[in-house]
Amino acid sequence: MRDLPFPRHELPTPALIVDRLALERNIVAMAGFAAARGVALRPHAKTHKSAEIARRQIAAGAEGICCAKLSEAEALADEGIANIHLTSPVVTDEALARLAALNARIALSVVADHPDNAARLAGLPLTVFIDVDPGNRRTGVASVEAAVALAGAIGDAGLKLGGVQFYCGSQQHIASFAERREVIAGKTAYLRAVLAALAEAGHAVPVVTGGGTGSFAIDAELGVLTELQVGSYIFMDREYGDCEFGGLRFESALSVDATVVSANAEGLVTIDAGLKAFAADAGVPVVLAGVAGESRYAFMGDEHGAIFADALPGIAGRVTLMPPHCDPTVNLYDRYWVVEGDRVVDVWPVTARGCCY
Amino acid sequence: MRDLPFPRHELPTPALIVDRLALERNIVAMAGFAAARGVALRPHAKTHKSAEIARRQIAAGAEGICCAKLSEAEALADEGIANIHLTSPVVTDEALARLAALNARIALSVVADHPDNAARLAGLPLTVFIDVDPGNRRTGVASVEAAVALAGAIGDAGLKLGGVQFYCGSQQHIASFAERREVIAGKTAYLRAVLAALAEAGHAVPVVTGGGTGSFAIDAELGVLTELQVGSYIFMDREYGDCEFGGLRFESALSVDATVVSANAEGLVTIDAGLKAFAADAGVPVVLAGVAGESRYAFMGDEHGAIFADALPGIAGRVTLMPPHCDPTVNLYDRYWVVEGDRVVDVWPVTARGCCY
Repeated sequence: MRDLPFPRHELPTPALIVDRLALERNIVAMAGFAAARGVALRPHAKTHKSAEIARRQIAAGAEGICCAKLSEAEALADEGIANIHLTSPVVTDEALARLAALNARIALSVVADHPDNAARLAGLPLTVFIDVDPGNRRTGVASVEAAVALAGAIGDAGLKLGGVQFYCGSQQHIASFAERREVIAGKTAYLRAVLAALAEAGHAVPVVTGGGTGSFAIDAELGVLTELQVGSYIFMDREYGDCEFGGLRFESALSVDATVVSANAEGLVTIDAGLKAFAADAGVPVVLAGVAGESRYAFMGDEHGAIFADALPGIAGRVTLMPPHCDPTVNLYDRYWVVEGDRVVDVWPVTARGCCY
Repeated sequence: MRDLPFPRHELPTPALIVDRLALERNIVAMAGFAAARGVALRPHAKTHKSAEIARRQIAAGAEGICCAKLSEAEALADEGIANIHLTSPVVTDEALARLAALNARIALSVVADHPDNAARLAGLPLTVFIDVDPGNRRTGVASVEAAVALAGAIGDAGLKLGGVQFYCGSQQHIASFAERREVIAGKTAYLRAVLAALAEAGHAVPVVTGGGTGSFAIDAELGVLTELQVGSYIFMDREYGDCEFGGLRFESALSVDATVVSANAEGLVTIDAGLKAFAADAGVPVVLAGVAGESRYAFMGDEHGAIFADALPGIAGRVTLMPPHCDPTVNLYDRYWVVEGDRVVDVWPVTARGCCY
């Protein structure tokens, strides 16, 4: 690895870029928001998979982090992140053995959404959250009664009930803030009913964790969640850029630098970033820099993309693009090149890249 | 890493699976086809990114392999693959220095598609191919005249003209074999004109390389390509499974094993494989095993998917899925778990994972 800093235009491309100052401002802004509203912050590390970034979030006041998968938590624990909540159920023998080992070395909690799962966790000195499905049929108990039954099963298994998790996933990207607010408020009324039934059955619920970058301001206003699991705010992406925000906005801190490798066709150039450089689940990237006038990107297979614009760079010219969806795009890269303007000032590994198991 | 073999159902999931015997049969079948037709074979390693698989392809008779990007070639050269053709232009100062270093240690060739690019390669003892655009506007010279001019520039730069590359990318997936044949034949008539003009201008063209899994049989019949760059035949995927083949077919040798982590909703279960387990550019995976009756998969975010079927497995049950598109899916994983039936018999690294630069 060459000495830092060095000029950004000398990076091999495609290169995953973090804007250091924008990232720091995003961290400070969300930490300030949570502190002002009296709500705890537990950012979701499935977005960045980076121990460097998790450390900065914790240093700014976060309780700890969330991880989506056990291997992601293992990788970040190996780099010193010592307070992790696992937001997906852990169910196989193989994974339960790894969960027990991880629980012995860090402050860990995990969700369950079925009494059988709680029974299989029995015997571990483990904190377990009831995952409550807001109606999205992904994970979580499906009724008030099922939540109360699971709380009982968690107690019967000798586990500690950490609280309730409630994540309105597909609602995060409702484009209109007013409409999103109305939908989240309706879901939260159901969450209130779950919490009331748990209280009535005598179950203390110390933490109510959930929310995301699309809903955190609404969640804080509704006042039911005690802890926010925001992830994408750290980087933002085109998908969240397409959404209205009611107040606090975050900066684009993640991009991909790419290079023009062919310029033989009228009205377009071909760059070295295609389906292996951008996750393709949420449309196309936005061209942020390197062209003049109106521009658009189109995937041209696994290795290439086309840029259409009024004025285009020539061969070896650089363009910068905003990923359509940050989480699965980050997961394609081994490292972040950390920049300040046109200088590369640091390199951070994507610590838990590929850790989806 | 645990001792081999061990039971497949003990793998952490999602797990990228290679069926060893199906893979070997695909290698033998394509090698036999090429030998029988008297055409050279240079499989594209952008599909598998694996030194283990490249070695098997070469042992079965391939001249060498193709790589899409310089870092992919560097990673495979580091593992002993010593004959590589680079199918994309290399244009930046940084990459040209790496290209020169790689050229000093293996048998390397690279494409160019512009005289300026040839001029920048001057001075290297390097074999350069003229990349000819079949009309897809991705890379390649855009006319017969441009091909002849580039041949002159390659000579002027003191480089060795290796031949012509002609890859009909988007045509590979035309579903009807007859329609695909007609389109490829039309493109190949243009290639013949390019080759005739090069011959008339006095340029020897030792190798005409190109083709893919959708066109190899057509290319062999047309008799213009002297070398086939087939990639996906090694694994196949849902996208190629949707295409008609005229004669030789290949087996599905790549799959992903996943685990049911939640089963609280009527008519579906949630598995641990989502957008970080399958590239999403080409639709959804196909459920191969683990369910009964009609089934379908739906993405449920970055970490999860839903399986809908008549009869579904319970929590911790296993399902096996065929990726929609093999190349970018392989690029998500660090290793292949190599199986024979229900036994894991080997583990192969995805040598060039993430090497898109």
